[in-house]
Amino acid sequence: MTVSLPKNRVKTIRSLAQKKERDETGLFIVEGVRLMREAAASDFEIVEVFYTAEAAGESVEPELLETLRRRCAIVERISAREMARIAGTVHASGILAIVRQRPAEAGRILESRGSGRCLVALDGVADPGNVGTIIRTCDWFGVDAVIAGQTSADLYNPKVVRATMGGMFHLPVATDVDLAAFVPAAREQGYTVYVTELTGGKPVGTVHPEGRSLVVFGNEAWGVSGKIGAMADVRVTIPRMGAAESLNVAVACGVVLSHFQSPSE
Amino acid sequence: MTVSLPKNRVKTIRSLAQKKERDETGLFIVEGVRLMREAAASDFEIVEVFYTAEAAGESVEPELLETLRRRCAIVERISAREMARIAGTVHASGILAIVRQRPAEAGRILESRGSGRCLVALDGVADPGNVGTIIRTCDWFGVDAVIAGQTSADLYNPKVVRATMGGMFHLPVATDVDLAAFVPAAREQGYTVYVTELTGGKPVGTVHPEGRSLVVFGNEAWGVSGKIGAMADVRVTIPRMGAAESLNVAVACGVVLSHFQSPSE
Repeated sequence: MTVSLPKNRVKTIRSLAQKKERDETGLFIVEGVRLMREAAASDFEIVEVFYTAEAAGESVEPELLETLRRRCAIVERISAREMARIAGTVHASGILAIVRQRPAEAGRILESRGSGRCLVALDGVADPGNVGTIIRTCDWFGVDAVIAGQTSADLYNPKVVRATMGGMFHLPVATDVDLAAFVPAAREQGYTVYVTELTGGKPVGTVHPEGRSLVVFGNEAWGVSGKIGAMADVRVTIPRMGAAESLNVAVACGVVLSHFQSPSE
Repeated sequence: MTVSLPKNRVKTIRSLAQKKERDETGLFIVEGVRLMREAAASDFEIVEVFYTAEAAGESVEPELLETLRRRCAIVERISAREMARIAGTVHASGILAIVRQRPAEAGRILESRGSGRCLVALDGVADPGNVGTIIRTCDWFGVDAVIAGQTSADLYNPKVVRATMGGMFHLPVATDVDLAAFVPAAREQGYTVYVTELTGGKPVGTVHPEGRSLVVFGNEAWGVSGKIGAMADVRVTIPRMGAAESLNVAVACGVVLSHFQSPSE
């Protein structure tokens, strides 16, 4: 049966596009089949699921709906028109869920044992697409956790969620972390702090991390803040061979991790 | 004097957001101070410039306007309201130019001498942000030219232009190239063809290119096409250490180039 949603219900769901509403409710939106599969396979709490009849006949496989029904009491079929209204886009995908936020605790991340751990910290990465792509990249290179500072884009922003391509369901991400306290705490736990800088640092190919590493990436325009930069054990730079003024921060993250995480050659 | 634009003029400028109109006129839009500086420093033909009084008093420095006036007969001050109309966005920046397209010729690129040349080919990279970020990344790593195949996003798409961060004004980019003809022609000129693949190729850290290299990146969803993939001399893969299904193609480009272009360690 296709359910019709009352107007205020539509409004409540759509309001989760706003950070203020997400913060107050502790909820966020997951949209699209691919991300839904990742959410369904994770232990995030799925609060409510909406799908369209069209999607159920095509992109959304019956197994996924079954899994979601086992995980969540409210799985409702709505019309494509209603989906477009709650998704707030014309090209809405056929499935959307309300999921409970579950940020990792920064303290817990530091308690984890293991000698070769690698953490990535974001100090003011502002663009949601970049934050999401960094999490996806960390997920590829087997980073143990991501620590998002207070000035980085909100993890639960729909653009961040989408760009992680499921990465946020795979590895712990701590949000809203006071990096000025976290970085010294990590050093006390034996982490070497690598701060990435546009120029002047050690060339990334000559840095060979051993033991625990914390790699810090900064803001798109002005890089890592002075306060955090001053805590660096090692400053790392990706050598420039051409004319570009800068490198995209998610690309820089991939480059540094590919060097740091590769088995010693 | 602030000039007022006739309605059909506004329509013509805005229509350059459409590929069809760009193809027919051979023009494209450059927006924002940073990109404008790069365009002004390049030898692209700047056809017309519009700026607002507000921008001229703030972000747009007098020297830039002077340079543009030397380069271009039509440099007009318009109202912020009019700028928003031609830019088609509410948050229009204060300066916008119509610039003539100037794609590089693929044949010419192959004629260039030099033993250590590195070219990057795009085989169906569909997302404009990815194409732009790849050009920016190539610009950072000193790639000699980018060859965009017929199925890649249009170089003159505003989102591509923006994401290049000026890279498209620094290095030759050939567009709409038939890669099935270009790749064999490059091999005849002594280029080794490296095709990037998600799995199964040689780990990027173990590949040490010598001489001329052509590196091919493929579509976001299905990678390099079978036809082009079959022309590979070497298949290259970025080893995965985590759980992600894939890596963003611009991030992959940065990772491969950082290994290929780094001075031998």
